[in-house]
Amino acid sequence: MKIAVVGAGLIGQAWAIVFARGGHEVALWDGHEEALKQAPLVIADLVADLQVAGLVTDSGALLSRIRVEHTLEDAIAGAGYVQENLPERLAMKQEIFARLDELANEEVVLASSTSSIPASAFTESLLGRGRCVIAHPVNPPYLVPVVEICGAPWTESQTIQKTWDLMQQVDQQPVHVKKELEGFVLNRLQGALLREAFRLVEQGYVDVDGLDATIRDGLGLRWAFMGPFETIDLNAPGGLADYAQRYGPLYQSIATQQNDTSPWSDALIQAVDGARRARLPKEQLAQRRQWRDRRLMAMAADRARRTAEDN
Amino acid sequence: MKIAVVGAGLIGQAWAIVFARGGHEVALWDGHEEALKQAPLVIADLVADLQVAGLVTDSGALLSRIRVEHTLEDAIAGAGYVQENLPERLAMKQEIFARLDELANEEVVLASSTSSIPASAFTESLLGRGRCVIAHPVNPPYLVPVVEICGAPWTESQTIQKTWDLMQQVDQQPVHVKKELEGFVLNRLQGALLREAFRLVEQGYVDVDGLDATIRDGLGLRWAFMGPFETIDLNAPGGLADYAQRYGPLYQSIATQQNDTSPWSDALIQAVDGARRARLPKEQLAQRRQWRDRRLMAMAADRARRTAEDN
Repeated sequence: MKIAVVGAGLIGQAWAIVFARGGHEVALWDGHEEALKQAPLVIADLVADLQVAGLVTDSGALLSRIRVEHTLEDAIAGAGYVQENLPERLAMKQEIFARLDELANEEVVLASSTSSIPASAFTESLLGRGRCVIAHPVNPPYLVPVVEICGAPWTESQTIQKTWDLMQQVDQQPVHVKKELEGFVLNRLQGALLREAFRLVEQGYVDVDGLDATIRDGLGLRWAFMGPFETIDLNAPGGLADYAQRYGPLYQSIATQQNDTSPWSDALIQAVDGARRARLPKEQLAQRRQWRDRRLMAMAADRARRTAEDN
Repeated sequence: MKIAVVGAGLIGQAWAIVFARGGHEVALWDGHEEALKQAPLVIADLVADLQVAGLVTDSGALLSRIRVEHTLEDAIAGAGYVQENLPERLAMKQEIFARLDELANEEVVLASSTSSIPASAFTESLLGRGRCVIAHPVNPPYLVPVVEICGAPWTESQTIQKTWDLMQQVDQQPVHVKKELEGFVLNRLQGALLREAFRLVEQGYVDVDGLDATIRDGLGLRWAFMGPFETIDLNAPGGLADYAQRYGPLYQSIATQQNDTSPWSDALIQAVDGARRARLPKEQLAQRRQWRDRRLMAMAADRARRTAEDN
């Protein structure tokens, strides 16, 4: 299948790799010629890193499946799926989806990578609004598999199904967010945890390093291969219902102390940022991101090995 | 150093392995003779598993450092540190700490593994209350390193320091919880995330499997080697303060939708448990726990290898 990737920034580049890795022909388009010129160079570097990590076997063949198109018309022509990745501005989403809906054959799914704008905000007036959907990746999607699929109220069920099937086929992990929801699921879970994390630091119960260690050397080890529900399901003899019976009252008591909704204050943000800068000076952030990506690659390679063993 | 482990159930057994692995002589005591008889057999099995996983090099030497004592007096005599692991009942904690405070030399730290009872509730009237502290592990501590150290208002700073140093020396990751706090840090973070997880399922936004996948194949991959603060610190060009500037308003808007404190309803617990049982029948829980422990062992072995490479 030919897949059109609209927008050639970081997310668009990453999607191009995911779809080409999955065997598809990718047509990459961007309104800025400079972005279109840079993207193949960045993609080649990324794919070379993935090959070193054992996550790609034939980088040459993968790269040969990605080509740049200089007009949106050429990118969309013959495409069976479109993934849009323009900046997070409503007017841009409205304009590009209007164009995509005109250009693409009516059975083609039009998916947006947006993390913050609901599909209903930029698809309502379109003739083909039923084939529009959000497919929100985590960066970078070639290392972190989850993709949140969330439709508008008028998104057709076959649109969800086609997107789900494609994501599975290219080794991503689709999650269906069944109704529109600010932050989808992932960022709501992250937000709930961050809110308590900031509050515990603000109130002097723990320092920034200690908070991070509690997840990194504690809960995070389980959550990296089980979700939170499976974790508690295995943490009581009789499973999740037994766990809820034993620990529900504790969590309920804690919950009544966790309902404050004041924003993170500037002083708090400065304090937490200061603790991070004492640990990692600003000029080392880029280097540490490379370290993070190597760790994510090692985890992805480990996951691929386990999947192969299971089959 | 000789370390006394008081209570020979699952947590006491695990602590015996941690301290013996760290080179200490362990005296294991329990009020129930049957528990004392079983514990060495269980410990030997666990240590054999750890040797197979490459996490212990000389299981014979490790096991030779653990001995069972049939009186509390013999267990405490000459011990330089005491780790208590009796059932989570206040009266039992009060009684055992009174006895420990009488038996142990005054410079010896008396630590409790309790996850739910603050130290102030069972140490206030003791002569040696300044050397009493909580050292709360995650199960099993020989695979999950974090240990929450939390004193009562009268716990001396040198008690915290000694406990911290010992935990580091035996390859655990101490976290100082600076004031008494229900659930300490770890379960408060878990509670905040679980609350949102249950609510999203209850309100029909996502199913149980999808919720778990969002963490397992998304956030959990980062959190297993970085904490939540380091994660967001690396997720914006200018670091954490930049991230808070960009995404603070989103999280603040979400927060105002996350302040409901109703308990998990029985119907909700039954629904989530039902989804888990459809995925994993009750009779397979034990087998899945073995799978989980093998995964935790693989992660611990990976962590040990990285630490060795860094040194």
